[in-house]
Amino acid sequence: MKNYIQKNEWNIIEEDFDPHLNKISESIFSLGNGRMGQRANFEEHYSGETLQGNYVAGVYYPDKTRVGWWKNGYPEYFAKVLNAANWIGLDITIGDERLDLFTCKVINFKRILNMQSGYLERLFTAELKSGKQVQVNTKRFCSITSDEIGAIRYELIALNFSETIHINSFVDGDVKNQDSNYDEKFWEEVSSEITDDEAYLTLKTKKTGFDVCTGISTQILLNGENINSDFEPEKKEKFVGLRTSVNLNQGDALTIFKFATNVSSENYEREHLLKTANANITEAAAKGFETLLKEQSDAWVEKWKESDIVIEGDIAAQQAIRFNIFQLFQTYTGKDARLNIGPKGFTGEKYGGSTYWDTEAYCVPFYLATAPQEVTRNLLLYRYKQLDKAIENAEKLGFKNGAALYPMVTMNGEECHNEWEITFEEIHRNGAIAYAIFNYVRYTNDESYLKDYGLEVLIGIARFWSQRVNWSADKQKYVMLGVTGPNEYENNVNNNWYTNTIAAWCMQYALEVAELVKANDPQKFAEMAKIVSLDEAAEFELWQKIVDNMYYPEDENLGVFLQQDGYLDKEQILVSELPAADRPLNQKWSWDRILRSCFIKQADVLQGFYFFEDRFDDEILRRNFDFYEPRTVHESSLSPCVHAILAAKLGDEKRAYEFYLRTSRLDLDDYNNDTEDGLHITSMAGTWMSVVEGFAGMRVRNGVLHFNPFLPEKWNSFSFNISFRGAVLNVRVSKEKVRIINHSESDISVVISGKQHTIQSDLTVMP
Amino acid sequence: MKNYIQKNEWNIIEEDFDPHLNKISESIFSLGNGRMGQRANFEEHYSGETLQGNYVAGVYYPDKTRVGWWKNGYPEYFAKVLNAANWIGLDITIGDERLDLFTCKVINFKRILNMQSGYLERLFTAELKSGKQVQVNTKRFCSITSDEIGAIRYELIALNFSETIHINSFVDGDVKNQDSNYDEKFWEEVSSEITDDEAYLTLKTKKTGFDVCTGISTQILLNGENINSDFEPEKKEKFVGLRTSVNLNQGDALTIFKFATNVSSENYEREHLLKTANANITEAAAKGFETLLKEQSDAWVEKWKESDIVIEGDIAAQQAIRFNIFQLFQTYTGKDARLNIGPKGFTGEKYGGSTYWDTEAYCVPFYLATAPQEVTRNLLLYRYKQLDKAIENAEKLGFKNGAALYPMVTMNGEECHNEWEITFEEIHRNGAIAYAIFNYVRYTNDESYLKDYGLEVLIGIARFWSQRVNWSADKQKYVMLGVTGPNEYENNVNNNWYTNTIAAWCMQYALEVAELVKANDPQKFAEMAKIVSLDEAAEFELWQKIVDNMYYPEDENLGVFLQQDGYLDKEQILVSELPAADRPLNQKWSWDRILRSCFIKQADVLQGFYFFEDRFDDEILRRNFDFYEPRTVHESSLSPCVHAILAAKLGDEKRAYEFYLRTSRLDLDDYNNDTEDGLHITSMAGTWMSVVEGFAGMRVRNGVLHFNPFLPEKWNSFSFNISFRGAVLNVRVSKEKVRIINHSESDISVVISGKQHTIQSDLTVMP
Repeated sequence: MKNYIQKNEWNIIEEDFDPHLNKISESIFSLGNGRMGQRANFEEHYSGETLQGNYVAGVYYPDKTRVGWWKNGYPEYFAKVLNAANWIGLDITIGDERLDLFTCKVINFKRILNMQSGYLERLFTAELKSGKQVQVNTKRFCSITSDEIGAIRYELIALNFSETIHINSFVDGDVKNQDSNYDEKFWEEVSSEITDDEAYLTLKTKKTGFDVCTGISTQILLNGENINSDFEPEKKEKFVGLRTSVNLNQGDALTIFKFATNVSSENYEREHLLKTANANITEAAAKGFETLLKEQSDAWVEKWKESDIVIEGDIAAQQAIRFNIFQLFQTYTGKDARLNIGPKGFTGEKYGGSTYWDTEAYCVPFYLATAPQEVTRNLLLYRYKQLDKAIENAEKLGFKNGAALYPMVTMNGEECHNEWEITFEEIHRNGAIAYAIFNYVRYTNDESYLKDYGLEVLIGIARFWSQRVNWSADKQKYVMLGVTGPNEYENNVNNNWYTNTIAAWCMQYALEVAELVKANDPQKFAEMAKIVSLDEAAEFELWQKIVDNMYYPEDENLGVFLQQDGYLDKEQILVSELPAADRPLNQKWSWDRILRSCFIKQADVLQGFYFFEDRFDDEILRRNFDFYEPRTVHESSLSPCVHAILAAKLGDEKRAYEFYLRTSRLDLDDYNNDTEDGLHITSMAGTWMSVVEGFAGMRVRNGVLHFNPFLPEKWNSFSFNISFRGAVLNVRVSKEKVRIINHSESDISVVISGKQHTIQSDLTVMP
Repeated sequence: MKNYIQKNEWNIIEEDFDPHLNKISESIFSLGNGRMGQRANFEEHYSGETLQGNYVAGVYYPDKTRVGWWKNGYPEYFAKVLNAANWIGLDITIGDERLDLFTCKVINFKRILNMQSGYLERLFTAELKSGKQVQVNTKRFCSITSDEIGAIRYELIALNFSETIHINSFVDGDVKNQDSNYDEKFWEEVSSEITDDEAYLTLKTKKTGFDVCTGISTQILLNGENINSDFEPEKKEKFVGLRTSVNLNQGDALTIFKFATNVSSENYEREHLLKTANANITEAAAKGFETLLKEQSDAWVEKWKESDIVIEGDIAAQQAIRFNIFQLFQTYTGKDARLNIGPKGFTGEKYGGSTYWDTEAYCVPFYLATAPQEVTRNLLLYRYKQLDKAIENAEKLGFKNGAALYPMVTMNGEECHNEWEITFEEIHRNGAIAYAIFNYVRYTNDESYLKDYGLEVLIGIARFWSQRVNWSADKQKYVMLGVTGPNEYENNVNNNWYTNTIAAWCMQYALEVAELVKANDPQKFAEMAKIVSLDEAAEFELWQKIVDNMYYPEDENLGVFLQQDGYLDKEQILVSELPAADRPLNQKWSWDRILRSCFIKQADVLQGFYFFEDRFDDEILRRNFDFYEPRTVHESSLSPCVHAILAAKLGDEKRAYEFYLRTSRLDLDDYNNDTEDGLHITSMAGTWMSVVEGFAGMRVRNGVLHFNPFLPEKWNSFSFNISFRGAVLNVRVSKEKVRIINHSESDISVVISGKQHTIQSDLTVMP
């Protein structure tokens, strides 16, 4: 655990430069706008440890993985988010000394991520070996209003010398992924062009054939005056640069503006890429840095209006929750239904693929409450559009008649992970995808989604489950064998309670939705039934029969559901009994030892209690919580939030707050010693859930918002904004009271701690 | 299934050349002498499909395998038997036409593996594009008397032309393994030397650093007269060649003798390799081809005296059983305790590693009965010498205090396979290693092995099991979670009946052996106990407690043992109900589907009945056999032999014979369409077992040989030779009688069909 980030309500601040922390800071200070993003690398050359990372949403590479023993049906590749052309590069040489923070003396270093306005700032004074001192101040952002644009202002003052400064403003496409197999590079050059102060590099990915054109333009000012530099072009393999030199007198201030664009063949005809990049750059340069920054800042202010959480009395918590929200919106804006939320966003390369069940299980609640309805709808449509691939995927595993198994990890709907115990067996993801439809409709009341898209997906999923279970003559129940549950510290288990539960729920929900659609729009239902060749009577009967006869493992003595068959055969040790040296288990224990232990990586039975809480009373929740919590090691970043919400539900405020702490500053404090690989983006949504669903106890029941709030002891108050069915509410929980302001045009009913209130438009209720 | 091999009692014969079958024949006609071996590639150039394969025992390479997600404790490499320098090459050019059977017309082609004398012969007439015809006759062998020597006689007659023949007799070390990751080549050249008619190439393996010097000498005769050729040396990277040209008149016969040697740094100082190779070659050339071949033939005649099985009335069966025995002895001779029996021997590269549990479970019974006692003893010592590595291996997985887990696949005692479900979980191999000790002592009565070596291994193994089980509070029994049994179509199961059974047996046997050693040699026992830090009272008590309280899954209604917990939850389908298009499952079904099906890859519960048959009466065996046999797909070559033996025990002669057929001609008829990858060497021992333990019902009980024979309907008789405690017996089972001849100097008691007989020295009993 690190503790070097300065506490501040709206800013992430690093003071003093420590090369050992650089890769961590590169992750933490990352920038993104949903379309492109980058780690917080330095513009100027840096010879110390760094993970140079620029990423363009939707551009990936199927990196082939070979293992000695291939099993039938293995996906043949592991798709990777691609490290793309580096467009921030500004190589600065002062006389004959290259500016490099690893080799010079760094004074007054400060790196600031301004979350309120959405930009990265860096200030430092560098003293070169010769004794020359420069003061540098940079600002950089990826525009959320023009999401193909990035901009840099790089200001340099000659403090104690006069000298010629050599500048190379470049695009470098000769990059590779950190963990590429065979150390392969995935990009090939298509073309490059340099004209005056602009340079363009078009690259193509091998195999997948994405073309991306990266363009830059560069302006140089001396003491505020544009000096119309003559740039000397530099072309190398996968590299374009604009070189120039400027003579600086002591005290002179040099300002470099660099505008960049990434345009991809995902969005434009290949032959128009260069033209489009040129137009983007021209427009950005014409607007100028300050105007673009003002647009950026204004747009972020609007985002915060919808989504901010204010915590009074705990700056660390305040900073952390804003950091989580900020990074989520940097990663996914919901504009493009082809995109999704990678577990590392644009901050690193680990986990390769872009879409996991994290999206449906953890991110959907966040975007539902904090962004326009279309954002979540687009996340749902992403899966709808990939239904055919999910059916193909199921067919590869022997399923028939339109059964759909969504991939565990995907870029384009195809499975792109390659561990059988995950891809073949961690099938509960299918349930989360159905649950997200339910969750979306519950929250928005957008029933039209069901008939237009949702039901078709639900039928594919229900068909999968109905084929995946089998009748156990021994148990006289339907069973589900050979699965991996959310707790990935078990593989190939039988009757995982969570998976059986969500499978039956999916079939039940598909039946309910079918009824609903049929009742409301019989013609639409009939059309859809024809398209998917639905044998209504037989299929519905089978689903119902399975729902009615599903097997759920439980232990009557303990009064708990069993994570899976045989769980109680394991040696029952508690996490508290584990020596510290054995943690984290995934780094200290061999895989088989983990598998046969009773330790749980992340909420499993309790995940089911979270999804289906209305089915269970607090007594049985408490028994299960008290049984499983002490056995859970939370070695997945997705785990503590569920425990926080359930602890809150049980009134265990202290533990709820403890679980919240584990998630909220996970990356800021580098809790798991892995922030340098990138941020845990999807689990950040869990942090938000801990506050809103945990501390504020927010739920939607029968179309009505419910709150059951408490205030963590350390805090003076917390408040948050949410959107709900057209209304924008501000909810504030303080020691004395709960205050809700209705910022919308119509009244709204809410239930607070069991009591119903009507909040008039633009009025406040303080129960 | 193919059917192109001519039936012959002592020879494997291919007539007519079909390039499509060439890789299969290359496997079938393979040569070996335990120290080195090779596929039956052609000496002359061949441009068609071929898998060029030369192998040197004990020389391997740790080929790194990367997978996307590494689990803690995974072995980092998959070791591979190395494709080594090709020493058979004789490049023949007639005028300007290269002799290449893929491009010329081939007449009267015949390939013969003479198993009685241990050599490979090939005859053909080739007609070149020009119409020139040559008749070629080659003989080749790897000497079993001088096991670093190989020899070739290559005879060529100019049938219808006079022309200059250009010859290049070479060693080519620029080879690679077919399945090397990254297409890497594993050899680097150390040095090469050419003098007169000799050429030497010394190569070093990367990483492992084995040096192997391959030397050749070449003699050329024209019409039987040595013509003292002046060879022109040819050196290239990892290549040495001897070039010469000879003018042939029509009718002239050219004879090329090529002697080759492989010497490795495993056996000599590096600086002596060249000298040793030179001495080997000089000696071989001095002896000459015919003398070496005579020695070879004589030695094989001796081997057959110990090990032959004669089947009258069924040439296909006769040929098959001899082929199996022949290939087993080509693979392993037992001279060197550092070597073992690779599943493909010297016939291919698949399965990489050299040692599997196949050795102990299947090969030991064969070598016990057909080879001197030292051969099996060396197989046992191989494991004894690797005990430290087995203890290290267990430590990596969290075991303590000298617990030993032998690797699933190994070259040098380290685990060198990389699937967690195999390496971490298929731990029953530890049981087979203990069982082989039991089996060896039962057969030989060599109790000294126990005190000198065996007990130490047994203690390591018993310690492992005692730590690997855990007490189930739920079942009030010791359980074993997360294993893979012999049936690899299940992974990570709980309480595999076979594994639990053999684990408890190991602990019981370790206790018995400890008692025995302690009683017979208390001082030795005390010394050993000190070396292994044995806490006798506590450890023995624990082992006994586990033995007494082990859990064995069974179903009382069916009266069968359950392969594992939950087996009856599976959908119970029989193999007979599977569509033909679904077979073999491992090529047609996805892995998860196989895992959750009830289908069994190879004998699992029944393997336990085979090992521990005296514990169970025929009634319970029959119930289990009738339950599991219809669920077993036998997609492991190791499976049918066990079923054959148990069917024979149950008196089901018809089925016993059917299972025998599945194993005996597996490779000759390319039953599984994979012979081109190499032969199934270790399962060949199972074929032998089917005859001797199945049809003849041979067992050792209380130091006495028992037979319970029957004659397969189709056969007139079968007979076999076995060695037993110094005696050599010939057992002949015919329609009328069983005849046993005692070829040794003392009398021996045997039990035939329940009745005891004493067979006097060199006399015959015919009950």
